[in-house]
Formats: sequence, C-alpha cells, structure tokens
Amino acid sequence: MKVLVTNDDGIFAEGIYKLAKKLSEKFDVYVVAPDRQRSATGHAITMHHPLRVNKVKFFDTDILAWAVNGTPTDCVKLGIEAILDIKPDIIISGINDGPNLGTDVLYSGTVSAAIEGAIHGFKSLAISMVSKKDIDYDFGADFSLKIAEKLLEKELPNNTLLNINIPDCSRQEVKGIKVTTLGIRRYKNSFIKRIDPRGQEYYWLGGEIVKEIQNESSDIACVEDNYISITPIHFDLTKFEAIEEIKKWDLKSI
Amino acid sequence: MKVLVTNDDGIFAEGIYKLAKKLSEKFDVYVVAPDRQRSATGHAITMHHPLRVNKVKFFDTDILAWAVNGTPTDCVKLGIEAILDIKPDIIISGINDGPNLGTDVLYSGTVSAAIEGAIHGFKSLAISMVSKKDIDYDFGADFSLKIAEKLLEKELPNNTLLNINIPDCSRQEVKGIKVTTLGIRRYKNSFIKRIDPRGQEYYWLGGEIVKEIQNESSDIACVEDNYISITPIHFDLTKFEAIEEIKKWDLKSI
Repeated sequence: MKVLVTNDDGIFAEGIYKLAKKLSEKFDVYVVAPDRQRSATGHAITMHHPLRVNKVKFFDTDILAWAVNGTPTDCVKLGIEAILDIKPDIIISGINDGPNLGTDVLYSGTVSAAIEGAIHGFKSLAISMVSKKDIDYDFGADFSLKIAEKLLEKELPNNTLLNINIPDCSRQEVKGIKVTTLGIRRYKNSFIKRIDPRGQEYYWLGGEIVKEIQNESSDIACVEDNYISITPIHFDLTKFEAIEEIKKWDLKSI
Repeated sequence: MKVLVTNDDGIFAEGIYKLAKKLSEKFDVYVVAPDRQRSATGHAITMHHPLRVNKVKFFDTDILAWAVNGTPTDCVKLGIEAILDIKPDIIISGINDGPNLGTDVLYSGTVSAAIEGAIHGFKSLAISMVSKKDIDYDFGADFSLKIAEKLLEKELPNNTLLNINIPDCSRQEVKGIKVTTLGIRRYKNSFIKRIDPRGQEYYWLGGEIVKEIQNESSDIACVEDNYISITPIHFDLTKFEAIEEIKKWDLKSI
C-alpha cells in the first residue's frame, strides 16, 4: 500500500517525521509537504506565484520527500498530479502540533489537505494532537498507522474523510475512541494591538476561546473527556434544510 | 442599517467599488478589505505576522474604508472585533471577479469571508459574477442591494449564509433566480511545468475543469442555464450519515 503524507507545520516538523517513519513500517511512504510552517492557511491554493518543488533528505530515513513553497492543499494537488508517478491508496495529513476541532477545521491547513485528497477521490485522514507541550507524537503515529489500516479495509461514503484528534493526556489515560460530530469553536478578543518602534499600530491575531456548551457527541467534548475523536467530514457546504424556506421568500419580486 | 463590505480581489477592485457605492444608497457602508489581490486564499488567517490596517480614501466616495495586509477572513475578524465601533446588520463579500461555484467555494476568499461573518452570528452573503470579461458589476451591485434587503427582512437557520452567483449573460438575458445546492467542481492537468532562466523547474497551478454531470438543482447547472444562483451554505462539515457506519468498524480492536 502506498501513502502520501503531508502536513501544515512544514516538512521538518516532528509530527510529520514520526508519522511518516511509523507508516513506513507497513506502507510505501511519499512525503510532499510545505517547506515551512503553513498552519492556519485553510484551503488556500497558490495561484499568483509559481510553485517550487525540491527533493529533500527526510531526516534519518530513506523516505522519498519533496518540499514545496506552497500550502498543504498545493502539496496534495502537486503530489498526485505532478510529483508522484504512483497513485496513493491513502492520503494522511499530520501529525498536527495542536488540535483541529469543531469550526476550527475551516482554518486548518492539516484538515484542508485531507479534504483536498477526498475531493480527488482518495481515502484521506487528518490527525492532530490536542496537547500543547511534551507532545507524544509516537502515540499519534502508532494510532495513525492503525486507523489507516482500518480505513483501507473499510469504505466511507463518497466525498468523506476522517478528522482525528488525540486528547491531551498520556497514552495510558486515553479512555477509548469515539465517533463524533464537529463542535462549535468561536473566539473573542481576538486581536492584540501594539505599537511598533516607528509609532505605527499593528495587530496580532490572538484568540480566547468562548466557553460554549458543547453537544455531548462533539469532538470538543470527546477530547476533553480523554477520548480519541474521529469525526467523519465532507466538503459539501450546502445547507439543504434552508432551501425550501428561501424558495418562499418571493424572490420574483427582486 | 449598517453593512460591512469585504472581498478577496483587493480594496481597489472594481467589484467592491460598485458594490459598496450601490449599497451606500440605502445603508451605512463600512469597507474592510485586503490591500491587494488575495483570491484563492480559502479560509486562511494570518497568525505568523502582524496585521496592518490603513484607512484609505475609497475611490470617489465618502465611504469609510480600511485596507488590511491580510486575508478576507482576517478583514472580517478585524472589522467586527477591532476596527468598527458599530455592529453591522449584515456582512457582504464581493463582488467577485469570476464564479464561486460548487466545490470551489472551499478555495474562495470571497465565500470564506462571508462564512466568517456567519461564524460570528451575522447575516452574511457572498456575491460573484460568473462572466470572465466585460463584467456588468452594476447589475451585480443592483442585485446585491435587493437581496441584502430581502435577507435583512427574513431569517435563515443558525450558522447559515447565502452564496450568490450571477450568470455569464447580459442583465436582459437572465431568466430568473433559483435556490440551489453546491455542485461538484474538479480539475485535471492542474499544473504547468516550466523552466526558469536559471534552468530550474517551477509549476503554475492551472486547472481544466473536469466535465461532470451536474445535479439539476446545483448552482453550476443553474448559472449555465442563465439563472442567478442562491445557495444556502453552512460551515458544519460533519458527515452525519457516516457516523453510525464508522461506529461498526470495531474500533476497540485498535
């Protein structure tokens, strides 16, 4: 089995190293990842400048790896359409340094890369560690290999992929696995205003999470309770329930 | 009524000018938009460098306007959390130079800005012109004003916004308005490989649309038939139908 690995923390991040190395025990691994930190790039693609692809030595491994001066979504597109001469059986994005939960998946380069895989019809998954420090990427990598094997054996509905978050606790403290929905993540006081040495204002995007009551079935509630969260996601944003309502709006009068 | 206007083509694009000027006939208009072309940035946010905000003269108008060195999503966040001392009644993103249909909404800065508005609980809409040349932004602006007034008068389900595309035909040839679903947009042969003057390879992201049979109810089919498309969209990517299926995967064995 062949796996295309990418991420949004950049090709020299620890998470992608541990992931690719573990996967290489069972799969042929191909890494195509951003040449630097590209987190929070959402589903951005690079249309206004050319993309460069450089073959790189991937840490202490013989894994084939290419660094791209683009976004995670660019990497998936380039990987399957331009770089690889094989067709992967699965695309895995991660392991992300930090959570990708609820509404935040929209901003996530990690999840967007896996969505891009699903758009192209590949089995895809994104994997993130909720921990903020002393992240146990070995645990994330072990789990990634097992869930990838499971996904290869099973079928998902068309246009569907998995978004996985490992809770912020030790491997021993994990209570189990739950299949979840995406929760709601909103931020307040998101900007910190500062003055530069030349007296000019600038802003840093910060962000304090608004405490909201989360549905028990949500990914956010799940990881808070020390379960691994697996959320099936898709990329059809249509709000079907609203269609009939809007049809009643007397649009002809417009 | 107060409206926050943004876009992804940049604050000096014709589409946002025509839109804001038309809306100013009926609304108090505030423009917060990228300082340059930022299309295809998806839902990217700027976390790794500081954001600058500059008040600018907005063409021949007295409309209050700020240019931001960030993405459309940054502009919405900054507008409502840092720049404006009022709370808008509606957020409008556009008028985009080109379509935002089907799967492509994921890549769209225009649509992502409106999604960001909806995440923050505002009535929001994105508007795009399908035409590739001689774009009749006046028509788009007239329609934007009318649909904005309609949206202010009506209610949508929570977390829902409107994605609007004006077909590639003259105002007189438009057959009407349809409420649609998002179609499927995939690309093939997306990359063009070239050699720079120093002998190094680079790639341009191109993209030829794969001809696919579109559902009759889709936005893509709708604009091809010269109707204006209004698609209600939301930002919950959960694939609810897959949850029970994945629960049967014997995850305990992992």
